[in-house]
Amino acid sequence: MHKPRGHKIWYIPDGYIPATSAGSLTSHESICVLNCGAEDALLRITIYFEDREPLEDIMVVVQGRRTKHIRTASLHKEGQSIPVNVPYAIEVQSDVPVIIQYSRLDATQAENALMSVIAYPIQ
Amino acid sequence: MHKPRGHKIWYIPDGYIPATSAGSLTSHESICVLNCGAEDALLRITIYFEDREPLEDIMVVVQGRRTKHIRTASLHKEGQSIPVNVPYAIEVQSDVPVIIQYSRLDATQAENALMSVIAYPIQ
Amino acid sequence: MHKPRGHKIWYIPDGYIPATSAGSLTSHESICVLNCGAEDALLRITIYFEDREPLEDIMVVVQGRRTKHIRTASLHKEGQSIPVNVPYAIEVQSDVPVIIQYSRLDATQAENALMSVIAYPIQ
Amino acid sequence: MHKPRGHKIWYIPDGYIPATSAGSLTSHESICVLNCGAEDALLRITIYFEDREPLEDIMVVVQGRRTKHIRTASLHKEGQSIPVNVPYAIEVQSDVPVIIQYSRLDATQAENALMSVIAYPIQ
Repeated sequence: MHKPRGHKIWYIPDGYIPATSAGSLTSHESICVLNCGAEDALLRITIYFEDREPLEDIMVVVQGRRTKHIRTASLHKEGQSIPVNVPYAIEVQSDVPVIIQYSRLDATQAENALMSVIAYPIQ
Repeated sequence: MHKPRGHKIWYIPDGYIPATSAGSLTSHESICVLNCGAEDALLRITIYFEDREPLEDIMVVVQGRRTKHIRTASLHKEGQSIPVNVPYAIEVQSDVPVIIQYSRLDATQAENALMSVIAYPIQ
Repeated sequence: MHKPRGHKIWYIPDGYIPATSAGSLTSHESICVLNCGAEDALLRITIYFEDREPLEDIMVVVQGRRTKHIRTASLHKEGQSIPVNVPYAIEVQSDVPVIIQYSRLDATQAENALMSVIAYPIQ
Repeated sequence: MHKPRGHKIWYIPDGYIPATSAGSLTSHESICVLNCGAEDALLRITIYFEDREPLEDIMVVVQGRRTKHIRTASLHKEGQSIPVNVPYAIEVQSDVPVIIQYSRLDATQAENALMSVIAYPIQ
């Protein structure tokens, strides 16, 4: 009845976790996933770097008929997480179609800066 | 003569209404709808959350040959509206094709931050 | 030899010219057009409003193999231009394929806010 | 095994390198490229201007299974680079499919402004 919508593979080439926060908010990035279908979505996230091998197969579940705004700083696998102040890129594979938007709040300065994109889907 | 343009289903995974405003402007989000056709568009909006059932079937009309910039804080249905400071996602279904862009002004700090995306259309 | 690229119709639902500028920069929006082909592109711009008839057929030329970043405040036709502080939407039709991005610098506060989207193309 | 993903031609109509930086960060733009495939990607970048001939065939390599966040101010060819404070547009051609996002940090004021778009792909 509730159909899954979107795509199973999404990309975000510009990932970056600012190291510092000067205002009342904390710098962070979110991978915002919408799962319109009735079934849970199992996400498999790969992080690409400029100068080392990718960090692969970070798993996250998004329940059916729910959204989940995932902070990239919370992602980890076997003790590894994404370092701050390092350019990286994100691949999200899902077992069911989902829709993904990426947003960054940069609070390096006391006043905030925001950016957001709909991630790039592959059929 | 004036053809409707765009799609009938659009998604915005990253919805968020900031609770506070410190500057001369008020934090807000807008769902900006363009209806190029001659007929009115009847929108049916669903709000998805992280931890509760979706808020469904909020209805909005956009006249033909007009745009409407809808503040999400103004949406309500049977006394329910979107709470502030809560991550959510937006689905907009329209009975005729329309084009949708989403923008957020965050005035949590005295100086503003802006973000904007073209919503994600489903054929 | 130099092929035109992109689409002939593009939409930007969220247009807005901030009335005031407090910092060293001036609030403005730009419709950024890239014409990759050898021939000039003739643009026909329509402005849609919330509460009045569209302002139609504003004409702009973009030379071949050039970009043009058009300030919306500079658009006018028979003495009519886009009022400030009013929500509106933009349609750009071109006689040859072009690629269009829209950006806004909001300098209402002393510190700036930026947003940008690739406009929405119709085949 | 590791398939290349994305497209071979991408466009960013709104390029602009702010001349000044007032805060602790430096104004800059990045062309963020993700190369998911096993082979290196050879990029050929063309810069379009408003009032002069394009600057063509700037070459950049992105290794396989890596991302590269390329500062536009670092691009140069035969002593020519992109001038600051000048509107321009970017074309990126790659010999293998890649995915491209463009982001700008404007630190003209002490507090930062950010914008980002997924570049526009041509099949």
